[in-house]
Amino acid sequence: MVSEATIAHVLFLIAMEAEAGPFIAHLALQPRSLSHPWAPCLVYTGSYKGCTVTVVTNGKDVSGVDNVGTTPAALSSFLAITELSPDLVINAGTAGGFRAKGAAIGDTFISSSFCHHDRRIPIPGWDAYAKGNHASLSCVNLVGALGYKMGVVTTGNSLDHTEMDDKLMLENDASVKDMEAAAVAWVAMHADKPFFAIKVVTDIVDGDRVTHEEFMENLGTAATSLQKALPQVVEFVVGKRVADL
Amino acid sequence: MVSEATIAHVLFLIAMEAEAGPFIAHLALQPRSLSHPWAPCLVYTGSYKGCTVTVVTNGKDVSGVDNVGTTPAALSSFLAITELSPDLVINAGTAGGFRAKGAAIGDTFISSSFCHHDRRIPIPGWDAYAKGNHASLSCVNLVGALGYKMGVVTTGNSLDHTEMDDKLMLENDASVKDMEAAAVAWVAMHADKPFFAIKVVTDIVDGDRVTHEEFMENLGTAATSLQKALPQVVEFVVGKRVADL
Repeated sequence: MVSEATIAHVLFLIAMEAEAGPFIAHLALQPRSLSHPWAPCLVYTGSYKGCTVTVVTNGKDVSGVDNVGTTPAALSSFLAITELSPDLVINAGTAGGFRAKGAAIGDTFISSSFCHHDRRIPIPGWDAYAKGNHASLSCVNLVGALGYKMGVVTTGNSLDHTEMDDKLMLENDASVKDMEAAAVAWVAMHADKPFFAIKVVTDIVDGDRVTHEEFMENLGTAATSLQKALPQVVEFVVGKRVADL
Repeated sequence: MVSEATIAHVLFLIAMEAEAGPFIAHLALQPRSLSHPWAPCLVYTGSYKGCTVTVVTNGKDVSGVDNVGTTPAALSSFLAITELSPDLVINAGTAGGFRAKGAAIGDTFISSSFCHHDRRIPIPGWDAYAKGNHASLSCVNLVGALGYKMGVVTTGNSLDHTEMDDKLMLENDASVKDMEAAAVAWVAMHADKPFFAIKVVTDIVDGDRVTHEEFMENLGTAATSLQKALPQVVEFVVGKRVADL
């Protein structure tokens, strides 16, 4: 449901605290709770030039690591969208980028669509469901104004990637590889909310480095890139209608 | 939270309509709605010997296939547990079985614990989170009384399995392979609800058949096995406390 009204509330879903922290600090967002007593997600909210901005992270596992991956993302998205009813939903975070699609470390990508690469059901009809192929809100004005790149986000629950993953990510025509976006897209689709993703590249999927080493090396740099990109996105969104993006 | 009271409400989470249909018909459960307007899951409820029995399926995708896999299962579990507050949660359905762990087509397994085999994050600390290893309610009395087998349920979003999946399922010491249980376990853990899974074997993971062919051949047979097993489980549970299972 694309409203003709000016966007009054933007919801950012960000899996990891390290990814979200600088942005939360930049906008001086304050913690708030949702009405649900036990969901692990964390919520921070505030306003910028009259627009409410909320950041939801997926919270921490009992072991202390962030609740990354599709199931916590789906749950956080569902809760936040249901309770806060934002006008626009954005999934932001770090991702792998494909050199073959022009990605370099630190690049900022906006989603053109969303697929899964780790849901294989080789039965006609089921194969398409498993792949997902969810629409993204078209953000051609935002992409043009901010000089970002655009491409398909492919989602899987692993930081690394097997040969089968490589094959399916290629079939998905992916520019970036993440661990949450397609699940958030599935929830946003059901909630009928405008949704796109903004992903900053921490590692090159089709490069010669081991993913987790490159990821850990560049996580700080990418958080800084996100810290630069997310305020730009907020600045661009404020005062506009969804159709203007 | 294990209550000392007699179980008054059992919630069965079953991904597919074909798996749930015979059980819903057997207990003459009636459709009801949850308060949520757009979640795709379907809810059927009724009572058996004074115990409320509710079956929740994950509903259908726009393409007509069932919403299988971890994200719809997590969402259905969350909604049903939150709104219905059952005393006991059971994930029931079909699964692949491992011959090496004594599984044969049509066998009924009860969970001993739950792991993921398609969430690989090769960083210390993150690797354990990704694997999951969630506890199952111990059901030794139920298993003994009904003659079921017991073992680790390993969950992934694909019907087939790669060499990497095989390696990780072996590491998980899995007896059965499904597509939802570990995600439901994650939700039930956060909700502090007693939870176990009952899985009927449709195909042999470590056999020589192609999974989806064997799965499609045996889905009807397995639904019949579930139709036999689920009323046995209800009969055993009614009148007992969680600690008696």
